[in-house]
Amino acid sequence: MAKSEKEFLDKINFPSDLKKVSEDDLIQVCEELRQEIIEEVSCNPGHFGASLGVVELTVALHYVLNTPYDNLIWDVGHQAYGHKILTGRKDIFHTNRKYKGISGFPNRNESEYDAFTVGHSSTSISAALGMATAAQLSGETDRKTVAVIGDGSMTAGLAFEGLNNAANNNADLLVILNDNNMAIDPNVGGLNNYLLDITTSQTYNKVKNDIWRFLGKLNRLNPNTQKIFQKVEQGIKTILLKQSNIFEAFNFRYFGPVDGHDVNHMVKVLSDLQKISGPKLLHVITKKGKGFKLAEQNQTYWHAPGMFDKVTGEILQPESTSPQAPKFQEVFGNTLVELAEMNDKIVGITPAMPTGSSLNIMMEKMPDRAFDVGIAEQHAVTFSGGLAAKGKLPFCAIYSSFMQRAYDQVIHDVALQNVNVVFCLDRGGVVGADGATHHGVYDLAFFRCIPNMTIASPLDAVELRNLMFTAQQENMGPFSIRYPRGKGRILDWQKPFEILPVGKGQKLKDGKDLAILSIGAIGVEAVDAIEELEKDGYSIAHYDMRYLKPIDTELLHEVLGKHDQIITLEDGCIIGGLGSAVIEFANDNHYQARVKRLGVPDKWVEQGTQQELYRECGYDKLGIIESATAILAKTEG
Amino acid sequence: MAKSEKEFLDKINFPSDLKKVSEDDLIQVCEELRQEIIEEVSCNPGHFGASLGVVELTVALHYVLNTPYDNLIWDVGHQAYGHKILTGRKDIFHTNRKYKGISGFPNRNESEYDAFTVGHSSTSISAALGMATAAQLSGETDRKTVAVIGDGSMTAGLAFEGLNNAANNNADLLVILNDNNMAIDPNVGGLNNYLLDITTSQTYNKVKNDIWRFLGKLNRLNPNTQKIFQKVEQGIKTILLKQSNIFEAFNFRYFGPVDGHDVNHMVKVLSDLQKISGPKLLHVITKKGKGFKLAEQNQTYWHAPGMFDKVTGEILQPESTSPQAPKFQEVFGNTLVELAEMNDKIVGITPAMPTGSSLNIMMEKMPDRAFDVGIAEQHAVTFSGGLAAKGKLPFCAIYSSFMQRAYDQVIHDVALQNVNVVFCLDRGGVVGADGATHHGVYDLAFFRCIPNMTIASPLDAVELRNLMFTAQQENMGPFSIRYPRGKGRILDWQKPFEILPVGKGQKLKDGKDLAILSIGAIGVEAVDAIEELEKDGYSIAHYDMRYLKPIDTELLHEVLGKHDQIITLEDGCIIGGLGSAVIEFANDNHYQARVKRLGVPDKWVEQGTQQELYRECGYDKLGIIESATAILAKTEG
Repeated sequence: MAKSEKEFLDKINFPSDLKKVSEDDLIQVCEELRQEIIEEVSCNPGHFGASLGVVELTVALHYVLNTPYDNLIWDVGHQAYGHKILTGRKDIFHTNRKYKGISGFPNRNESEYDAFTVGHSSTSISAALGMATAAQLSGETDRKTVAVIGDGSMTAGLAFEGLNNAANNNADLLVILNDNNMAIDPNVGGLNNYLLDITTSQTYNKVKNDIWRFLGKLNRLNPNTQKIFQKVEQGIKTILLKQSNIFEAFNFRYFGPVDGHDVNHMVKVLSDLQKISGPKLLHVITKKGKGFKLAEQNQTYWHAPGMFDKVTGEILQPESTSPQAPKFQEVFGNTLVELAEMNDKIVGITPAMPTGSSLNIMMEKMPDRAFDVGIAEQHAVTFSGGLAAKGKLPFCAIYSSFMQRAYDQVIHDVALQNVNVVFCLDRGGVVGADGATHHGVYDLAFFRCIPNMTIASPLDAVELRNLMFTAQQENMGPFSIRYPRGKGRILDWQKPFEILPVGKGQKLKDGKDLAILSIGAIGVEAVDAIEELEKDGYSIAHYDMRYLKPIDTELLHEVLGKHDQIITLEDGCIIGGLGSAVIEFANDNHYQARVKRLGVPDKWVEQGTQQELYRECGYDKLGIIESATAILAKTEG
Repeated sequence: MAKSEKEFLDKINFPSDLKKVSEDDLIQVCEELRQEIIEEVSCNPGHFGASLGVVELTVALHYVLNTPYDNLIWDVGHQAYGHKILTGRKDIFHTNRKYKGISGFPNRNESEYDAFTVGHSSTSISAALGMATAAQLSGETDRKTVAVIGDGSMTAGLAFEGLNNAANNNADLLVILNDNNMAIDPNVGGLNNYLLDITTSQTYNKVKNDIWRFLGKLNRLNPNTQKIFQKVEQGIKTILLKQSNIFEAFNFRYFGPVDGHDVNHMVKVLSDLQKISGPKLLHVITKKGKGFKLAEQNQTYWHAPGMFDKVTGEILQPESTSPQAPKFQEVFGNTLVELAEMNDKIVGITPAMPTGSSLNIMMEKMPDRAFDVGIAEQHAVTFSGGLAAKGKLPFCAIYSSFMQRAYDQVIHDVALQNVNVVFCLDRGGVVGADGATHHGVYDLAFFRCIPNMTIASPLDAVELRNLMFTAQQENMGPFSIRYPRGKGRILDWQKPFEILPVGKGQKLKDGKDLAILSIGAIGVEAVDAIEELEKDGYSIAHYDMRYLKPIDTELLHEVLGKHDQIITLEDGCIIGGLGSAVIEFANDNHYQARVKRLGVPDKWVEQGTQQELYRECGYDKLGIIESATAILAKTEG
C-alpha cells in the first residue's frame, strides 16, 4: 500500500536526523510518525494502540537523549513501533512481525538502539537499574538510563522489586510511568485506583502546590497564630516530602503528572530531568490509541487489530469461504461457563488476559466467580492455591510463556499442597508473530518434573471440553490442560461431556511400518502426513497421547511391543517433553525401539506464522513426512 | 534434656485450652511459651529468633481467633514454632525438622491448624486473599482470615501483587505486618527505609495526630485567617486519608504501629479489628530473638543457631576430631573475591542471602560491587541481565529452590539475551532439615530445556573454583554452576585456577562391568560405593560429567561404546536431568545400553539429614551398591 509523503519523517532515519529538526516542528514530526504507524499497521497487523499513545513521548525521548549511548528500555515493547521507525528501521518496518522480518518487540540482536530484549511485562525497571549501575561502576556519569513502563506493567511484582531496590544504590535512573489506565484490558487493582486518585480533577499535585503556598503564607500571620502552626509545619512538610506518594516512599523523586501528548512540554521536562541525579519517576498521562478515533474508543480491540482501512478504520476481515471452527480460547471460555453452571465450586482466574483467554465470558455471566487479578501471574497461582485450600476449584488460565513467571508458585503453592487447581495453559506451543519471547514451548518439560501434576493436552476442541470436564471431578489435584493459540478444525464441538480417563491416550489409527505418538493439537499435522504417506503405500499407526503425565503405560507397552520405529510429535521443546518421556519409558522397560523426537529444537525460534515455524522446526506435515520416509528408507534398506 | 515445669503451658494442648486462661495470665503464658521454645531449640537445632519474636502475637492470635475455622497463614513459617506448640504438637515438638518428624514449617498435611503449607517467602497475602474470597463466596461471613508477614517478606513482588489485588474484591482479610527490620540478614531497600521512617521517634503517627488536632483548631481562628485555610484544609485531609501511607494507597486500612510484645494490648487490638470488615493491615513492631539476650544482639547468627546452652547461650559445637573441609558456600564466597580482584567486570548479587550464600565476604571487601537486593529473586536475575547487557559479569547466587521464583527471568532476561550471567545455584539437591519446600531438586531439569544455557556442577571444592574461573572467561553466555548445601571432603582446595573446558567431563576410573556417570558432589557416594564393590571383585568405571549441558558427547560415545549397563547418579529429580539426557543421547545415537537412573524419584521428599534422604531415595553409597549388584547379578545370570 502506498504511503503518504512526509515532509520531515522522510528525512529522518536515525535520532541524529531528528535532532536537526527545530523544536517548533516537532508537533509536525509527531503527526507524521503517527500517520506512518497507522499506514504500516493498517496493512501489516500488529500492536497498534500502545504505539500511538507514546508518539510524542518517543519523539521527545530521542530528541533529548543521546541514544544509543544512553540506555532506553521499553517495558513489554508493544509501544516501540515509533522507536523502531526513528532508529534505522523505517524502511524495513513493513516486515514487522513477519517470518525473517523484524521483531514486534525491541530486540538486542536487531539494533543497538534496543538496549534490552523485551516482550514479557515489568522487566524494565530492574534491567534499567542494572544498566544504570553498570554505568555508575564504570564511572560513566554522563550516561543516562530511562525505563518507560505502563501503569499495567507496574502491577507485576517484578516492577515493585525493581522500585524497592533502586532506593538502595542511588543509581541515575529515570522511570517514566506511561499512565493510560490500560494494559490490554482495563487495569485493575489498588495501584490503578491510586493512580486514578492522584490524577483526577482535584489533582494530587494541585493540592500539594496549594499546601506549599499555604506554608509560605504562615510567615505573614501574627505571632500567636504562628505558634499554633510551628508544631505542625514540620509535620506537614515531612508528610509532603516522605509520604507524599507511593513512589517517593520508595525514595524516587516524583514528577508529574504531565500531559504525554504535549511534545514540546515533554522535551522541556525531559531536558530538566537530565540535570537531576538519582532515581526519579516522571508520571506521564497518555491515551492509548491517541489520534485514531476508533482506537481511542475501544482500546482493548485496537490493542492489536487485524488489517483495517487506514482512513475509515473499517476492519478488513480475510474473506471466509467456509464456516469457521472456534478458537481454542473460545472453547475454553464457553466451556468454563457451562461447567461453572453445573459445579458451584468452580471459579475462574486470569492475570490481565480476560479478552485474550476468553475468561471475559465468565466475568460477564458470573462476575462474582471470575477474577482478573492484573498482570500478576505469581499471585494468580498462589491466590488459586488459597481458594483451592478452602474447597473452591479454580480454573487458572495463563499463557504458557507467562506461566514461567509462576513456576515456583505452581510447585510450592499448588502441587506441594496437592490442591485442586486446573491450570489452563493457553498459547502452548509456538505462537506465531509475537516471536521468541512469547512462544510457549517449555511448559511440557518444566511441568513434567513436578510431582502430583497431571499434564494433559487436547487434540481438538472436543477433547479440550472433555479434559476440562474431567479436571473438575473431585480430588484431581493439580491438573494442567495445554492448548495452542488459534483455531482447531472441528465445527460441531459442543458435544455432551465425557470423562477422559486420566493417564489414558487413544489409538487414532493402526499401522505396521511406524508409529507416531503425538500430544496436543499438533497431532493434526500427523493426520495429514499419514494421509500422504498412505498414498505412497506406507502403513502408519497414530496414537493421541492426551496425557503426558501420568503417561499411558499400557498404550506404550502396546506400541513398543509392536513397533521398533517411533516418531514422537509435540509443539514444544524436544528436551524434556513427550519424546523424552517415551524414551525414558522404553529404556526403563528394556524396549529397543528407536525414537525420533519431533518438536522445537534446542534453539530460540523467532517470529513467523505458526505454520512457518512448524516448518522451520520440522514438525509440520512435510517435516513429519520427511522424517518418516527417512526412517522407512533406512528400515527398507 | 529435661524441660522445666510450666504452670499454664503444661495444661495447654490446643487453642481451646488457651482460651480458658484469663487475660491477666497471658503474660505468664507467653513467658512459658518462650521458655519452651528456648528449651526445645537449644537441644534440637532449628529456627530460633523468628519464633521468639512472635510469642506474644502467637498467643494473642490464638486467644482471639477461632482457629482452625478461622484461617491463620504464617508467611515463610520460620516463626511458627509457638503456633505449633499451641496447636496439638507440643509433645512431638522434639521431632521438629527430623526425619519422619514434624516439619519445621506449617504444613497442611500435618495439622488442620496449618491453613497453608509454607517455606518460601511472601505467599501469605495471596493465599489468604484466596481463602478470604472462598469464605466470601460460601457466605461464611463469620470466618476470619489472617496473614502474618514479616517486613523482609514484604519486599518480594508476590506480596505486592497480593496487596494490589486485595483492593479489588474487598475480602475480609487482616494482614499483620511483623516488622522487625530483619529477614535472615538485615533488610534492605526502599520499603525498609520507609517502614523505619514511619516508626522512628518522630513517628508518622504522631505527626498525623498533630495535624488532625491542628485542623480542629482552625474553627477557633478569626474569619480572615480561616479563609486562607479553607482552600487547603480539604487538601490536607485528602492527603492524610489517601496518601497517608503506602498500604492505604492500596486500599488497606492501616492500624499501628503497635508494640508486638504487649500481649494484652495485642488481644485488645485484634479483638477490635475483628469488628472491621474489608482489607486491613496491622503494623506490629517486634524484636527478633526477643527474650534471649544473645539472640537479640546478633539476630543473623541466631536466626537458626546450632545446639546451645539454654541458660548461657554458649554454642555447643559437635567436637571435631579432624580438620574440616570448607562448605561449598565458603568456597564460592572466597573464590568470588579472588576472581573479582583479577576481573573488574565481576559483580556479585544475592537476593537477601548474604550470609547463607557467603556473598557477605565480597560485600565486606568490595561493597560497591556486591549487591544484596532483598527477597527479590526475579529482580536479582533481571538486574543481572541489565548489568550484563552493559558489559558487567554478574555472579548471581540463588538457592536452587528459590531460583524457581526467577525462572521466567532466567529464560527471558538472560538466556534469550545471551548475556554473560553466572548463576551460582546454591543448595542444589536435597537440603536436609528444611524439607520439601526447600529441596533444590528440579533445577537440572528446568534449566536443561533452556537454549544457550551452560549447566555445570562440580564434584568437589576444587572443581567449583575452576568452574567459576571458567565461567568468567569472555562470552560464555548464561552459565549455571550448581553445588549442594554443606561440606565437601577436600581440605586443600585453594589450588591455582584451571580452565575446565565447557562440555567436557572426566574419567575418574576405568572399569569393565558397569559404568557410573555422575554429576556434582553426590559423585563421592559413587566413589565410596565403587570401593566396596571392588572388594567384591567387581570392576566399575566412574565418570564425573561436570557439565550437563552441553553434555560431553565424546565421553558418552566412549562409555556407551564400551558399556551396555550404565548407572546415572544425580542429586536431583530423575525426570529430565542427567539420566534423561544420557538416555536421549543413547537413543539418538542408536546405542542399546540400559540406563538405571538414580536420583530423586517423582514424589515429594520430606525433611531429614541429607544422608537420610539420599538413603530414602536410593542414591547414597548403599543405594548405588544395591542398584549395581542387582544389575550385575542379572547380567551374570
